[in-house]
Amino acid sequence: MWNVAEELDAILVFAEHRYYGESMPFGNKSFTDSKHLNYLTSQQALADFAVLVQHLKDTIPGAQNTPVIAIGGSYGGMLAAWFRMKYPHVVIGALAASAPIWQFDSLVPCGTFYKIVTEDFRKSGLGCSEAIRNSWAAIKRITATEKGLRWLSCTFHLCSPLKTVTDVTIFKAWLRETWINSAMVDYPYPADFLQPLPAWPVQAICKYLKNPKLSDRLLLQNIFQAIDIYYNYTGRASCLNLTHTATKSLGLQGWYYQACTEMVMPMCSDGINDMFEPQKWDFRTYSEDCFKTWGVRPRPSWIPTLYGGKNISAHSNIIFSNGGLDPWSGGGVTQNITDTLVAIVIPEGAHHLDLRANSPFDPKSVLQARLLEVQYMKLWLQKQNGQ
Amino acid sequence: MWNVAEELDAILVFAEHRYYGESMPFGNKSFTDSKHLNYLTSQQALADFAVLVQHLKDTIPGAQNTPVIAIGGSYGGMLAAWFRMKYPHVVIGALAASAPIWQFDSLVPCGTFYKIVTEDFRKSGLGCSEAIRNSWAAIKRITATEKGLRWLSCTFHLCSPLKTVTDVTIFKAWLRETWINSAMVDYPYPADFLQPLPAWPVQAICKYLKNPKLSDRLLLQNIFQAIDIYYNYTGRASCLNLTHTATKSLGLQGWYYQACTEMVMPMCSDGINDMFEPQKWDFRTYSEDCFKTWGVRPRPSWIPTLYGGKNISAHSNIIFSNGGLDPWSGGGVTQNITDTLVAIVIPEGAHHLDLRANSPFDPKSVLQARLLEVQYMKLWLQKQNGQ
Repeated sequence: MWNVAEELDAILVFAEHRYYGESMPFGNKSFTDSKHLNYLTSQQALADFAVLVQHLKDTIPGAQNTPVIAIGGSYGGMLAAWFRMKYPHVVIGALAASAPIWQFDSLVPCGTFYKIVTEDFRKSGLGCSEAIRNSWAAIKRITATEKGLRWLSCTFHLCSPLKTVTDVTIFKAWLRETWINSAMVDYPYPADFLQPLPAWPVQAICKYLKNPKLSDRLLLQNIFQAIDIYYNYTGRASCLNLTHTATKSLGLQGWYYQACTEMVMPMCSDGINDMFEPQKWDFRTYSEDCFKTWGVRPRPSWIPTLYGGKNISAHSNIIFSNGGLDPWSGGGVTQNITDTLVAIVIPEGAHHLDLRANSPFDPKSVLQARLLEVQYMKLWLQKQNGQ
Repeated sequence: MWNVAEELDAILVFAEHRYYGESMPFGNKSFTDSKHLNYLTSQQALADFAVLVQHLKDTIPGAQNTPVIAIGGSYGGMLAAWFRMKYPHVVIGALAASAPIWQFDSLVPCGTFYKIVTEDFRKSGLGCSEAIRNSWAAIKRITATEKGLRWLSCTFHLCSPLKTVTDVTIFKAWLRETWINSAMVDYPYPADFLQPLPAWPVQAICKYLKNPKLSDRLLLQNIFQAIDIYYNYTGRASCLNLTHTATKSLGLQGWYYQACTEMVMPMCSDGINDMFEPQKWDFRTYSEDCFKTWGVRPRPSWIPTLYGGKNISAHSNIIFSNGGLDPWSGGGVTQNITDTLVAIVIPEGAHHLDLRANSPFDPKSVLQARLLEVQYMKLWLQKQNGQ
């Protein structure tokens, strides 16, 4: 964005989403109860952006008639796309990078996401995905005894040792989250998005997972070494904490609430087409958990009702870019819908690689994607000026 | 709509707007305070419609893939247009009849509305608008004495006699409202929209207002006879009530709240280009009144920010129909914006005449408008089926 902004002589504005970062509408009370959380919705966020753009145009000298382009990645990419859909008078177009706008309801199969994660690991080292697939049964066998629980807690350098069946469930969810996150940030150079990581972190992880047929203890020791790449690349972690899977600045608390209201993304695994423990999508339990945590119930079909689901051809000027390595590409738009609703796929790209600064390690596909994205932006600007 | 529905083999669905009619989200408490009124917004109403359409498609056999067209008049016309703008995946097009989507902020001059009312009266009888223009000064002179106040209350058959300066202000506002409403419902045949009225009610009113130069008392007696057409055409009113200007079923309470939040429509008169007392648009007082009544402050530029103001060319498939006699046409879209955002003007039409059932008294222009509207609808349906 910095490079392109200079080229297009543009102002870059980062709008902070309400209830994230420092934008707390009720200060410390913002997360106390559903009454205070009631204003945390994607629709309200879009309204904020519309008012912000208007305010900037009214107050920055010479900006009154400046065309605006929305850019975002991940949830921000969905917002960018939705912003263009709902406020085409405010932005002339949008770049929605790695935006899984179809990861809702039954718009895509619930297993797609885990399949793509698995595929990344399968391609990143012989035996790798198989080792992870086998690890779940090994954990089950090891944690059947108290001694095994102690051994596992010790082997994984856990800050709090595992004691109960629930702890084991949390441990496995933490492992799953770690594999997912590694796939998401599988960038071609060292980066620090969710965690500080080496180049191609999935390959780095897979170096420890070449042998899926080891005994339980040896396999799990390897799994630890693999996971330590993710959590301790800097060598600074004295122990591993199951409640921390990514940097705090992502604002996961806000996202968890949104996941319990609008952002319901059905996920499932079968252990055959993916390397995870079989787990059906269970909306009832999901909803119960949401109710216990926040006192609210999720509305699984509201997002497609509000933003159109797959029926979005009436809109225009949106680029949907997707990384082939990114599990979120499964819920993304990967084929052109119309001449002005276009898809770009970056086979070697992870989660919104195209939005990152240029690097000598960038694969060709992302360079081409960035060029194409700027071409589309210039086209929108020309049309705007030409009329 | 009934005729066209039959022709198109369509289902007619009337969606009741939340906080109107029987759709009270908190029952009797819905209007008690701003906390309960907080969910009364146009955006929420559109969301209701989207959910309703989805529900109907899911539950009416064979309706799953039925294309839907939004139709509405007045505020309902604005909602129809905005529904197509915000939910193009739910409706393939919209007929927005007499929808003043530009009667906001400074999108049109604030004096336009009263100018059109005045023009109706001017064209409906010699001396008519002049008589009304002169009546304000006559009222001022007469109400200067207690005797005059009594005489006026008696002459106008008022249910509660005027006593204070405030009462006189209310009385004048009531007269103004009556002239406006008469212009709005200036239909070519007897109708019963805001009140039961004869054909061409403004002409009927103007029959009593041929002489603008009479003495104050004679002029005001004529004004009473004129206004009695509006309030007592059936001959059943024993006295006239200043708080009733239209049938209760319009749900004015809900509208007054909306006018104090989103629906801020600046209005002004100068007494020169119109027949009303000069009155500047005074947002500060308007806002104070809103705060006193509802505990809320209006946001005058929110509607243009949300729905695009004059910058709506990115949308498609909306017909904006307008009546030349309708004061709301001043804030309407009266010229084509694009090939698919089209305007229809019905010179002899009052407020959404085109939505009313066919009548032998219909002027040619409204028959042509209705034909054209159906042609556009068929075009949308063909395109939908063709793709």
